Amino acid sequence: MRTTVGIVGAGPAGLLLARLLHVAGIDSVVLESRDRAYVEHRQRAGILEQGTVDVLRAAGAGERMDREGLRHDGIELRFARRRHRVDFPALTGGRSVMVYAQTEVCKDLIALQLAEGGPLLFETEALAVEDALTDRPRVRFRREGVEDVLECDYVVGCDGFWGVARKAVPAELSRVHERTYPFGWLGILADVPPSHDELVYARHERGFALLSMRSPSVSRLYLQVPQGTDAQAWDDEEIWDELARRFETDDDWRLERGPITQKSVTPMRSYVHEPMRHGRVFLAGDAAHIVPPTGAKGLNLAVGDVVTFARALTHQRETGSSELLGAYSETCLRRVWQAERFSYDMTTMLHPAPDATPFDERIQLARLERIASSRAAETDLAEGYTGFAFE
Amino acid sequence: MRTTVGIVGAGPAGLLLARLLHVAGIDSVVLESRDRAYVEHRQRAGILEQGTVDVLRAAGAGERMDREGLRHDGIELRFARRRHRVDFPALTGGRSVMVYAQTEVCKDLIALQLAEGGPLLFETEALAVEDALTDRPRVRFRREGVEDVLECDYVVGCDGFWGVARKAVPAELSRVHERTYPFGWLGILADVPPSHDELVYARHERGFALLSMRSPSVSRLYLQVPQGTDAQAWDDEEIWDELARRFETDDDWRLERGPITQKSVTPMRSYVHEPMRHGRVFLAGDAAHIVPPTGAKGLNLAVGDVVTFARALTHQRETGSSELLGAYSETCLRRVWQAERFSYDMTTMLHPAPDATPFDERIQLARLERIASSRAAETDLAEGYTGFAFE
Repeated sequence: MRTTVGIVGAGPAGLLLARLLHVAGIDSVVLESRDRAYVEHRQRAGILEQGTVDVLRAAGAGERMDREGLRHDGIELRFARRRHRVDFPALTGGRSVMVYAQTEVCKDLIALQLAEGGPLLFETEALAVEDALTDRPRVRFRREGVEDVLECDYVVGCDGFWGVARKAVPAELSRVHERTYPFGWLGILADVPPSHDELVYARHERGFALLSMRSPSVSRLYLQVPQGTDAQAWDDEEIWDELARRFETDDDWRLERGPITQKSVTPMRSYVHEPMRHGRVFLAGDAAHIVPPTGAKGLNLAVGDVVTFARALTHQRETGSSELLGAYSETCLRRVWQAERFSYDMTTMLHPAPDATPFDERIQLARLERIASSRAAETDLAEGYTGFAFE
Repeated sequence: MRTTVGIVGAGPAGLLLARLLHVAGIDSVVLESRDRAYVEHRQRAGILEQGTVDVLRAAGAGERMDREGLRHDGIELRFARRRHRVDFPALTGGRSVMVYAQTEVCKDLIALQLAEGGPLLFETEALAVEDALTDRPRVRFRREGVEDVLECDYVVGCDGFWGVARKAVPAELSRVHERTYPFGWLGILADVPPSHDELVYARHERGFALLSMRSPSVSRLYLQVPQGTDAQAWDDEEIWDELARRFETDDDWRLERGPITQKSVTPMRSYVHEPMRHGRVFLAGDAAHIVPPTGAKGLNLAVGDVVTFARALTHQRETGSSELLGAYSETCLRRVWQAERFSYDMTTMLHPAPDATPFDERIQLARLERIASSRAAETDLAEGYTGFAFE
């Protein structure tokens, strides 16, 4: 099999890249180890930055998002029983975010790709990415028990943290930057209208909590729990009681409860692999970097990476210059490190660490007070949350 | 002996308080364990925030400062061999800082107090502050070998971190918040004109360095060194070589060298004692809180505390209401915690820790990049550096 761009992985990065290339008249093949149903149902992020929304619209993949997504013009910070709203458009010159689940983005892109795009092969396992330094990098893969090879001009690894594409960068050229956190998030989906119309980020001495939503009738809520917690160890009533405690305010706000339909624990990790390019193999999304979910940056970083790649390849086609392709890693990493910083800061500001001293607790509260009292500090947060520019 | 306000300690906090009270027509007595020469010569901070400058002028203590002090409209951040200037007035609506050494502030205030003010007793050691919960708190002291008592309406402890006033707050009511850092500053005074006309804060992988000045002909420079370093273990040439390395830039900037006239190591500590008031005993400055010197906040926080006390007592005299005196601790602590946060952030952004991971290093650089590229983040820093409002 032969194509211009071999794409490993049909998560949002791989699917969007295939779509962007299709729009630009560049052919690609997407290989995905899982089946379609799995890809369309794994629960992941749900906050699209302004830039991501703009890209999806421009790619012709924004129609259902614009109909069913929930535009959010702010978030609420809750601490010391106080509530402080951060007004995004007022602070950033009109930027906002969209609540629209990653699974829905994937469904929309899959439908488009199957209707109009190039091959999208499910249940096709990439085994290795090879010959990165030649003009003809290849993906070895297995499909229906048979091994085969996809020959490409370029390979983009969108196959996530556990994927094979990253291995195409020789170990002696790789630098890994990593941090783990001594806590995770216990997340639930519940059939109850969200108790607040925007996301609520609560810092409580018992731990962080996040109120979010999937739709006007489905709430998504999270609790900071110790690393290694088993989701099933918490019964539903305990979860609601703990959420109610952490969201408590001075006023008459109340948390509405409902049937919990899903429970799981997400670990927290920061991870960056450098460089993000080796020869003609490019890494995008979780294949190259992981952020803790507090800043809602994971999906958006993946979108930024594939936008950068598609622009660079289009530029190469139009001008003959490989300059932007050559600068792919540096271009992406500038944005990646800003998102890593933002995610780290949001995480450490809102989560009391198990070994936090009284000094650490006061510093967390002073950070939140600062955001609530300085327009500059609040703008810094609003700019970070609504997103760093795609280049 | 009897007075309205007994002031323990003749550092900048105690001396300024005596002056502010004198201007308001309230009598006080200042007790200082050291002699005048010692107080006038101990090297300490040298950056006065806009608010501190305003207070000194209003107190009639600004004449020599305005003549000899150096007004600074910005600082330079240096990282990855790059230089980024933070323009204070442009970012804060006209605020700036003044470079004028703490020893000079003390000399000016001592001269004023001896000429116009109440008793300022050197070589008078406070032994204990007693009866905080009565209307007549007392300071027991020893002078010329004889013990005596100063009876007061109010006692203000301005006697620093090692002073006795803090002990007037019963241990069971005290909460201490503390953090130490695994590094200190090796500071030098050198007879050479400063190599840059504003302060330079340099983050280098070998450690932090600061270029500062005492006058147009005297430089004050600092190097991050491991905790417990002996200043004499560094010879002068080594110090200049290391400074030159850490300040290195991409352009033709050069560090000028000269004779080193003083060398010492400053430890780094964050410390807050709560509450800052117990009955009629009030704590001010280092008696209640310590910041690492990176944010240049120590002296300015002390000024903020005594301004708050003087205003509260004047209010009580004018209206009969003790409300502001009662709120002294909360009022000061809001500002103190913002300064602690700012100092902690400046310190951790600029000092590579001995156990820093590659991830930590990249986060430091991403913070500096953010300040250099976002007006909001830069404004947040400029507001913090030029100072938090006195209430």
